[in-house]
Amino acid sequence: MSLISVGEIQAAAQRIRPYVLCTPLIPAPWGDRDRPLFLKPEGLQSVGAFKVRGAFNAIGRLDAATRARGVVAYSSGNHAQAVACAAARFGIVAHIVMPRETPQVKIEATRAHGAEVVLCEPGRREAVAAEVVERTGGVLIPPFDHPDVIAGQGTIGLEIAEDLPEVASVIVPVSGGGLASGIGTAIRALAPAATVFGAEPELAADTAASLAAGHRVDWSIEDRNRTIADGLRSQPSALTFAHLRQVLDGVITVSENEIRDAVREIALRANLVAEPSGAVALAAYRRGATPPGPTVVIVSGGNVELGMLAQILTG
Amino acid sequence: MSLISVGEIQAAAQRIRPYVLCTPLIPAPWGDRDRPLFLKPEGLQSVGAFKVRGAFNAIGRLDAATRARGVVAYSSGNHAQAVACAAARFGIVAHIVMPRETPQVKIEATRAHGAEVVLCEPGRREAVAAEVVERTGGVLIPPFDHPDVIAGQGTIGLEIAEDLPEVASVIVPVSGGGLASGIGTAIRALAPAATVFGAEPELAADTAASLAAGHRVDWSIEDRNRTIADGLRSQPSALTFAHLRQVLDGVITVSENEIRDAVREIALRANLVAEPSGAVALAAYRRGATPPGPTVVIVSGGNVELGMLAQILTG
Repeated sequence: MSLISVGEIQAAAQRIRPYVLCTPLIPAPWGDRDRPLFLKPEGLQSVGAFKVRGAFNAIGRLDAATRARGVVAYSSGNHAQAVACAAARFGIVAHIVMPRETPQVKIEATRAHGAEVVLCEPGRREAVAAEVVERTGGVLIPPFDHPDVIAGQGTIGLEIAEDLPEVASVIVPVSGGGLASGIGTAIRALAPAATVFGAEPELAADTAASLAAGHRVDWSIEDRNRTIADGLRSQPSALTFAHLRQVLDGVITVSENEIRDAVREIALRANLVAEPSGAVALAAYRRGATPPGPTVVIVSGGNVELGMLAQILTG
Repeated sequence: MSLISVGEIQAAAQRIRPYVLCTPLIPAPWGDRDRPLFLKPEGLQSVGAFKVRGAFNAIGRLDAATRARGVVAYSSGNHAQAVACAAARFGIVAHIVMPRETPQVKIEATRAHGAEVVLCEPGRREAVAAEVVERTGGVLIPPFDHPDVIAGQGTIGLEIAEDLPEVASVIVPVSGGGLASGIGTAIRALAPAATVFGAEPELAADTAASLAAGHRVDWSIEDRNRTIADGLRSQPSALTFAHLRQVLDGVITVSENEIRDAVREIALRANLVAEPSGAVALAAYRRGATPPGPTVVIVSGGNVELGMLAQILTG
């Protein structure tokens, strides 16, 4: 299977520059003494998550005639908003298929970008998206299983390598694996001495299990849906798993309580709102298992309902 | 009275660069259509507020022998942490005088930087600080009434003018007025077409009253203490008031409910934790009274107790 190159990530960085925030690398002096902590706050992106990078790269690469047919995506949330946002900027139609149980805040945010939201039953989103593609002629922008999406997410790795060349470790949340595939590829190429770790909820630890087994292990959607980290309920594709095997030094799994603690820590110490999925990498950092040296934690997104956030903050 | 120059602000920027984050200017596409909104998230500074800029500049300018005697500050919170943090980086002792009613989170954060906290009765902090200066021989770093502090805060204005030369308006919270004095001076010099507005709680609107009267009007500490925005309970000094008369186009006052709404809006839409004082400029923006064009709102800090934050978020 062909893996993406750092050159594709560098091309993606050029392509998305007009649309996407180069997030700052924030020193967090409250980290461990031997592992100085830095946060990469992707929740500051205009859609509240890193997903805008992959969406702008994938849609930006389409030729004009293809792009004019519109785009289709399926997502429980942040990818939906990202594709909707990018489509709006390119002036094209977006149909977004979302499971009915998606947090209302994410459905509303997607509609606010002008996208047509198609609600579906849990587990049927890929099938429904295929129907919409058939009906509209639009181009499917998958949430992670696409080289252009992976390359877009990888631009985070370029920024880290540029801002902190001496980085010793990067910790990245893993769900479908597009983010970790992209960042890992960039870090391996540009900061080859650094380690790259995935972070997963124990309740959706299919990637940890898959890497241990040497092949993809399927966890049921019911099992994965148990975690509060609703953005981390997907599983890698063949494409992203091939990348993860190459670029990850390991996966650290964390409990639901550790995730909640990390949301609280990020709010209290960094003044950032992180959704539970966005706090999983900090929870992994707090396990203390990564090598010494400057450590970057990806805070991947901040789209959480205020009621849930308030509950976690006071929990 | 001698006002600071943009040259002093530019010198401050050089001086504080190794210690202070150049915060990104975050596009907030959920602003008004005719007044595109940008946030300057100073809560991302390592002490959770802009105050670190003035503190590093003021302490950085001391000659080595003077600095070695240590520093003294009085503050209800963010300036305390900023001076404590800067003193720790310079390896000197800091004594911080704080009123007993200061939120516990701010007292603890100040101690965490290694500072000696001296608690005092409300309204007595300046007197107690003078006693500590007498006893220790340390240098007083005032929270706003000092040219070096004003110049340090003004570096925010330099960054805005560089990142968004076409800025039409900047909205800045006003308490003692150091932040607005510094930013206003920088914007007047480098983006002279832009307007600069102060923002105040209606319950601590002494600066609005003072500018209307043409001279400083005193509000009682009891009156000013009514606002939830605990960082905005100070009043300008002669020095900062002289600046504000030169550089402000006006002051917009907002209600306590508008401040709470703005805290919620910043959490939900920008994924940032703002303390009430840090949200007052967005509340003023929401009044819709500033001129059309790109508008920068200073989110000045994020140090709020999680219980209060949770209460505001669900309120």
